[in-house]
Amino acid sequence: MNGLMMQMPLLISSLIVHADRHHGNAEIVSRRVEGDIHRCTYSDCHRRSRQMANALAGLGIGRSDRVATLAWNGYRHLELYYAVSGSGAVLHTMNPRLHPDQVVYIADHAEDRILFFDLSFLSIVQAIAGRVKTIKTFVAMTDRVHLPKDAGIANLLCYEDLIEGNSDAYEWPSFDENLASSMCYTSGTTGNPKGVLYSHRSTVLHTYAVALPDSLNCSAKDAILPVVPMFHVNAWGLPYVACMTGAKLVLPGPRLDGKSLHDLMEAEQVTVSAGVPTVWQALLVYLEQNHLKFATMNRTVIGGSACPPAMLRKFQETYGVYVLHAWGMTEMSPVGTVCSFKAKHAAASAEERYGVQAKQGRGVYGVDMKIVDPNGADLPWDGNASGDLMVRGPWILSRYFKDEGGDPLQNGWFPTGDVAKIDPDGYMQITDRSKDVIKSGGEWIGSIDLENVAMGHPAVAMAACIAVRHPKWDERPLLVVQKKPGAELSREDLLKFYEGKIARWWTPDDVVFVDAIPLGATGKMLKNRLREQFKDYKLPGV
Amino acid sequence: MNGLMMQMPLLISSLIVHADRHHGNAEIVSRRVEGDIHRCTYSDCHRRSRQMANALAGLGIGRSDRVATLAWNGYRHLELYYAVSGSGAVLHTMNPRLHPDQVVYIADHAEDRILFFDLSFLSIVQAIAGRVKTIKTFVAMTDRVHLPKDAGIANLLCYEDLIEGNSDAYEWPSFDENLASSMCYTSGTTGNPKGVLYSHRSTVLHTYAVALPDSLNCSAKDAILPVVPMFHVNAWGLPYVACMTGAKLVLPGPRLDGKSLHDLMEAEQVTVSAGVPTVWQALLVYLEQNHLKFATMNRTVIGGSACPPAMLRKFQETYGVYVLHAWGMTEMSPVGTVCSFKAKHAAASAEERYGVQAKQGRGVYGVDMKIVDPNGADLPWDGNASGDLMVRGPWILSRYFKDEGGDPLQNGWFPTGDVAKIDPDGYMQITDRSKDVIKSGGEWIGSIDLENVAMGHPAVAMAACIAVRHPKWDERPLLVVQKKPGAELSREDLLKFYEGKIARWWTPDDVVFVDAIPLGATGKMLKNRLREQFKDYKLPGV
Repeated sequence: MNGLMMQMPLLISSLIVHADRHHGNAEIVSRRVEGDIHRCTYSDCHRRSRQMANALAGLGIGRSDRVATLAWNGYRHLELYYAVSGSGAVLHTMNPRLHPDQVVYIADHAEDRILFFDLSFLSIVQAIAGRVKTIKTFVAMTDRVHLPKDAGIANLLCYEDLIEGNSDAYEWPSFDENLASSMCYTSGTTGNPKGVLYSHRSTVLHTYAVALPDSLNCSAKDAILPVVPMFHVNAWGLPYVACMTGAKLVLPGPRLDGKSLHDLMEAEQVTVSAGVPTVWQALLVYLEQNHLKFATMNRTVIGGSACPPAMLRKFQETYGVYVLHAWGMTEMSPVGTVCSFKAKHAAASAEERYGVQAKQGRGVYGVDMKIVDPNGADLPWDGNASGDLMVRGPWILSRYFKDEGGDPLQNGWFPTGDVAKIDPDGYMQITDRSKDVIKSGGEWIGSIDLENVAMGHPAVAMAACIAVRHPKWDERPLLVVQKKPGAELSREDLLKFYEGKIARWWTPDDVVFVDAIPLGATGKMLKNRLREQFKDYKLPGV
Repeated sequence: MNGLMMQMPLLISSLIVHADRHHGNAEIVSRRVEGDIHRCTYSDCHRRSRQMANALAGLGIGRSDRVATLAWNGYRHLELYYAVSGSGAVLHTMNPRLHPDQVVYIADHAEDRILFFDLSFLSIVQAIAGRVKTIKTFVAMTDRVHLPKDAGIANLLCYEDLIEGNSDAYEWPSFDENLASSMCYTSGTTGNPKGVLYSHRSTVLHTYAVALPDSLNCSAKDAILPVVPMFHVNAWGLPYVACMTGAKLVLPGPRLDGKSLHDLMEAEQVTVSAGVPTVWQALLVYLEQNHLKFATMNRTVIGGSACPPAMLRKFQETYGVYVLHAWGMTEMSPVGTVCSFKAKHAAASAEERYGVQAKQGRGVYGVDMKIVDPNGADLPWDGNASGDLMVRGPWILSRYFKDEGGDPLQNGWFPTGDVAKIDPDGYMQITDRSKDVIKSGGEWIGSIDLENVAMGHPAVAMAACIAVRHPKWDERPLLVVQKKPGAELSREDLLKFYEGKIARWWTPDDVVFVDAIPLGATGKMLKNRLREQFKDYKLPGV
């Protein structure tokens, strides 16, 4: 016997409708590619999204057609989030940091019909326009004044012309909540990129979970600045969270340097931000060099990679910005865990609290997780046992687009590729990527722990620890270090810095200094490239 | 084309599983019918719920069978929330304040198979046991020591015997999330009670929405004391919210007097509570008389009836307890709106903020609302237009159990029976129940406004304003007042108190003092009974 509640599908369009009705005057502030600051409201966004939905229909975009973007965080990109998904098409946010060859591969694989792009990416579009198979229309996200002449792109349309040329009379259609809403390709380090296809249901459920007090804790009192790009797993869901909660939304556009971010945060009284550690590193350096603080920022979400403990302390102690350590994956929409305190931690010492915050946190309700041994058997949540982290839930991938890579699940669970511990309070800590683990003499050494120690040294800007082959131990750790500009640091001093901080046998066998550690399109360190570079490296004494 | 996310149904069992895994040691503290304080954890609750699920199967309870309760807020009732719904049966929480005739009617109508009851309600059970048609088994929610001898009830079982006699090896079944999970009858003032049938989907979605920062803002740092009964619309969802968030749960059992509540709040460091105005009135009187304060309580949710402005000020100014004014209905699971501030209110004056807080608040995301004129046409959200409030959403009723009362919807919207205004910021304010509106000379007078003024007078304990027939104006307002014990107050003084607070023509035509205003089973004033009592009342000058 079923319950007798209304059958109302969970649809993305209802988020912008809600924001318009309850928070019609709340602001969306964007730094534009054109350089200026643009201000509009949720009512404006809703009206223009409806105009764009009519424009898409006029361009022949139908149910489930893929609409690609190459765009920064800005109000036009936000309009596409609602216009495309809301009308029943699929928003395919592409990563402009990818090589044009990869962009072509992804666009063809997704069978994108149309591409919207910010002018910053004109050269990419020029490079791919003649090569992509299914994209027949290109839309420059600008007005007629800024539209490039003679861009050499056939069928180049102007975004503002499409808006102006269409009525805002549009009824958001209703459909099955399982309909595909958006897609994102994983920047896999091996094999072809794989498409992750989100649904309206998964997106709305994820939005509820991410906004909860013990997740990102977002409300109408907030001003949210997502540094994490809208082309990267939907900016961790924040464009949806903003509409659900009516928070002011501040979109930084192309300028992600320390000064630009800090200026915008101060001018717009931002209360919460979100991004990967590498972005924050640059911001912290800028603040330090210029003796600046934050007036209104009270917390920031750090994910994508483990947050180095030194960064956590710096944010909290120097700047009064509470750090929410989080973990997720493109395949998880992306949020899986967020590190919020429990009641009992109020009485804990500062060091105990940092011990908790070093972990990636507790599973948000909706995400099931477990750790398993190599045979797939459950491992205890005792804070010691370390194993492959498996997840499941309504916003976690069941298979990739076009079944790329075959069935990814193991008995209904998605293997994350991360190795983790979980403590009795349910706090999960990633100890490594399974492919980054260093297997020394039959034991595992977690590369992240070794990197975190190095990152605590004042002269280190970035550190990557990789396995190097060893005749006796199979593998031993090599530390690859990028120093801060102008800093002095010797191999010996850095190795000495490890004393007392980790088990002696975990100490890296050697240190190499590089000009720059290579970063991937989403800001993560490309350790596979370092492993390739140092695959024949001779460790001392070998 | 559907998204490629996992198909995981939203099930109530996943709430207790989540609480056990992530908050296994968080406490559930209950004042028992036996008088003592009982302490257990979410892990205990999960284990005993599994034992009870096995017990229910042993008693022949299958999918969608109705299991009734007559019980206070306590850990055993909580176990039934999860054991019954989690196993696929339907939890039917009955209101023990109803007349035994009504209990019989409801139990028969629901076709309850079994009844669990707290010993406080033994006399009700004795009164109905021989009369109910489908209940064949009665379970006293106590241990063998406290089990009444010779209760005169056939098939009387002991709760703790059922727990002890069953294994905790139980796998929560998976099923369609639309399956019925629980039911509650509305204590309608006219016609037969009508059953509202919730589903797993509606319950889980409601739980997400209720826990949000701008709703009840619940987290693992909270200790929640629901004064609102678990037999009344699932205690506004708090037993589910507690599991979703891992908050400590404090259950007051039968003792809802001011002293008992305050003692428990202080002893268990409660941070948030929820209940109807009449309960808070008693608590505030107790605090005032005994010069007490709250050490940890920082907010309370007030719903069920409009919160009198004087109560709001008292809580916030005298006790530092922030009031969350909320509105909902049994048919809405129940939460529809919660009154949380927006960013812009931070700079508002205290009086402006009280003006906002007097309203029932903004729609929580998931609830659509609108106000319409008598012809069903939309009215503007301008803070002035007042009309019938309509709602829709995935946790709002589509029809009553067994289609009692016919199709309740109007073009897909549920008519709430409330009359309301909505301001441009989306804040809704109930001006009246449509049946309580006083129609004077073709204009409407809101009875709630008139009651709120009276409640602001220090000598008034409770006030109800009702329409009395008038030869010239059709209807005019009569104020029915219950004075505070020992307080002195004349008709003239009270009418004078209205001067300058409302439009002159709204002033009640007369005041009558009564010993006690009659209250319904959920603590609301029974204005229909007052209208009956005063239907021939002669107003002065008529």
